[in-house]
Amino acid sequence: MASKTPRVVIVGGGFGGLTAARALAGKPVQVTLLDRKNHHTFQPLLYQVATAGLSPGDITAPIRWVLRRQRNAEVLLAEVTGFDLARRRLRASDLELEYDYLIVAAGASHAYFGHDEWEPLAPGLKTVEDAMEIRNRVLLAFELAEREAATGTNVHPLNFVVIGGGPTGVELAGTLAEITRTALAKDFRKIDPKRARIILLEGGKRVLPAYTEDLSASAQRQLERLGVEVRTAAIVTGIGARTVRIGDEELPATVTLWAAGVAASPLGKLLGVPVDRAGRVPVEPDLSLGAHHEVFVIGDLASLQDEHGKLLPGLAPVAIQEGKAAAKNILRDLRGEPRLPFRYFDKGSLATIGRAAAVGQVGKLHFSGFTAWLAWLFVHIMYLIGFRNRFVVLFSWAWSYWTFDRGVRLITGRPDLPSFEAEVKRAPALEKVAR
Amino acid sequence: MASKTPRVVIVGGGFGGLTAARALAGKPVQVTLLDRKNHHTFQPLLYQVATAGLSPGDITAPIRWVLRRQRNAEVLLAEVTGFDLARRRLRASDLELEYDYLIVAAGASHAYFGHDEWEPLAPGLKTVEDAMEIRNRVLLAFELAEREAATGTNVHPLNFVVIGGGPTGVELAGTLAEITRTALAKDFRKIDPKRARIILLEGGKRVLPAYTEDLSASAQRQLERLGVEVRTAAIVTGIGARTVRIGDEELPATVTLWAAGVAASPLGKLLGVPVDRAGRVPVEPDLSLGAHHEVFVIGDLASLQDEHGKLLPGLAPVAIQEGKAAAKNILRDLRGEPRLPFRYFDKGSLATIGRAAAVGQVGKLHFSGFTAWLAWLFVHIMYLIGFRNRFVVLFSWAWSYWTFDRGVRLITGRPDLPSFEAEVKRAPALEKVAR
Repeated sequence: MASKTPRVVIVGGGFGGLTAARALAGKPVQVTLLDRKNHHTFQPLLYQVATAGLSPGDITAPIRWVLRRQRNAEVLLAEVTGFDLARRRLRASDLELEYDYLIVAAGASHAYFGHDEWEPLAPGLKTVEDAMEIRNRVLLAFELAEREAATGTNVHPLNFVVIGGGPTGVELAGTLAEITRTALAKDFRKIDPKRARIILLEGGKRVLPAYTEDLSASAQRQLERLGVEVRTAAIVTGIGARTVRIGDEELPATVTLWAAGVAASPLGKLLGVPVDRAGRVPVEPDLSLGAHHEVFVIGDLASLQDEHGKLLPGLAPVAIQEGKAAAKNILRDLRGEPRLPFRYFDKGSLATIGRAAAVGQVGKLHFSGFTAWLAWLFVHIMYLIGFRNRFVVLFSWAWSYWTFDRGVRLITGRPDLPSFEAEVKRAPALEKVAR
Repeated sequence: MASKTPRVVIVGGGFGGLTAARALAGKPVQVTLLDRKNHHTFQPLLYQVATAGLSPGDITAPIRWVLRRQRNAEVLLAEVTGFDLARRRLRASDLELEYDYLIVAAGASHAYFGHDEWEPLAPGLKTVEDAMEIRNRVLLAFELAEREAATGTNVHPLNFVVIGGGPTGVELAGTLAEITRTALAKDFRKIDPKRARIILLEGGKRVLPAYTEDLSASAQRQLERLGVEVRTAAIVTGIGARTVRIGDEELPATVTLWAAGVAASPLGKLLGVPVDRAGRVPVEPDLSLGAHHEVFVIGDLASLQDEHGKLLPGLAPVAIQEGKAAAKNILRDLRGEPRLPFRYFDKGSLATIGRAAAVGQVGKLHFSGFTAWLAWLFVHIMYLIGFRNRFVVLFSWAWSYWTFDRGVRLITGRPDLPSFEAEVKRAPALEKVAR
């Protein structure tokens, strides 16, 4: 390739970055995509890995495999450590790369609202590793309760507390309720998994606050039908080794999961431009930084308002559309055409709750229950990258649906004893978590 | 259940222990199976996880799920820490259990012939965690080589060294050769995975020494056709951060894998009875300990000769047949019938080498290549526990076979940077491994 071919460096292989890379296929640019992981993660299905329905490999695809046929793209496993916007360079692991255009699509992680000490006590769900950690903790809680019962001592009740009533919290709580009542129900001799309590805490007035009130109410009803105790206006003020504090109330919690806060990637700050309170980078309507026309920020890391002045949400469709738009604006630059402002086309939203339970809104149309769930299933499987994954996921789901079984109930860890149990043994305070 | 129902405690949920538990279904005993993992691992397919062909969840099944319908069996996740044979008791995690019969089926792990310092440099393959570690190292070696090439510096050649020419070493080397020439071939821009060297080292005169000479020769030819360099009579005298020493020769090694030695579980010594050099427990023909008629040892942990004075090998069929035999002898005791000596029925052996490559012997019949591979495929899928796993595995294989693709090319680790890379960064000596 000629040395004057413009070089586009993309940081992040999530929905935004990967879409941008693909939109540049066959165009007169050279694309370098950097990610600190080797795989794209289909985040909307992470909760299925966390609840033992799917394997990590089912919802991931190697980024270089996705781009293997795109001759103008290369993929490098590297972690960005610094930007030099003035010189159009960046450092990533032991690399120093020059760029003509930069697309930063580094995504978001969970935030603990200034309480980082809560993280080991209440893991969030953003990566495959997070999902495996949650799966380990949930399965191990049942194993340790069964063992405790075998010693003949009093068994502590199993309480799973999910903090945050957004889509992730609702999925986790709904699916946990489902598996305790189906897949796990017959496998234990001394404890009754059906008696496990699943408690969903939401700080606001209703679950799924991004949806309309009728759909929030429907979601809560569907959750309760699955056996979830929903508590709204429940502000978490503390998380302990086996408790969650709501105001002055101490709620016993065997396992606590965090689905409440989101913070943009620290790469936003590393850019050296102003960021908002959640660490997002405000961008111009063309998705670039004003001062640096050649730098685009997209996806969960970007902050942009729609035509009604509402901040665009951190959702896969937004990231995908922004990835396409950033790539198109680069190509317009190269052709000497003016850039176009980004316009988000909202195709509607769907949130799943559990087996045959979901809510959805498409324009003014609201639907819930089985119909919404089928729509959700269809959309998510169609979006899954790679035929193989799509097929395995479809099969695994059909299987779980008809048999109520969960195939991937695997506790893994190094050393040989599961890590959470080792943790329980190390930390006297945590010991009470599982007993 | 009446309190005088005899209690059979089984230690280990591998092929031996699980078969023994199932053979006691519906019988007038109470079965407690202990394992320090929550899952049974289908060890013959571990190499497929290590080489990104299958997900860990595809070759494992929760032990309590396997036994969920067996009302007289309970499963406890616990690690055995001591036996008191005189009082017929054992300690496991925080439990103290009494037994009337004890079946110890704790299996084996890898042994480094007194060189435990080799373990972090050359991981073995006995658990799902081992397989994920090998997968991480292999995939990461390619990623780091591609990144090194992107810096413009000289690229070190990629050398994968597999130590040990038994079935596991042959599988690993053959499959590594296969994936570098197929699944990975088109995914990189700067390096050519096809140029990676795969070197299989065997200390003895021929690979697969448990097979006949003609099959060993055939296996070596099939390996070489796949691109593996086979070196026999190669005694490893040292393993360094990026080298393997054979006699006085230093062989560069990007990734080194260990498939050479096996040591029985330390639970053998914990029994307080004499063990052989490999830590195996010599048992009577009825599979019990002579001094303790009520204690059976089976599977890889047991040492027993066949009618020709040859030690029974550490294979799944031996463990399965011993598990059945131990259970039957317990039931004969309870009926007041004399015990029967164990007789191993050798149905033949099969060793896979790679895509459409294998060797097999059934009695005097020897076969190799595609036929042996098909037989191997059939036998192993039929043995896989649980229909779901069987189906997913079959599909994954059919998919890989026709597309030469590997679906599960996932590097995972905590913290976010893959663990091996973090290791590389921490240890200056190891740094050279990957560069």
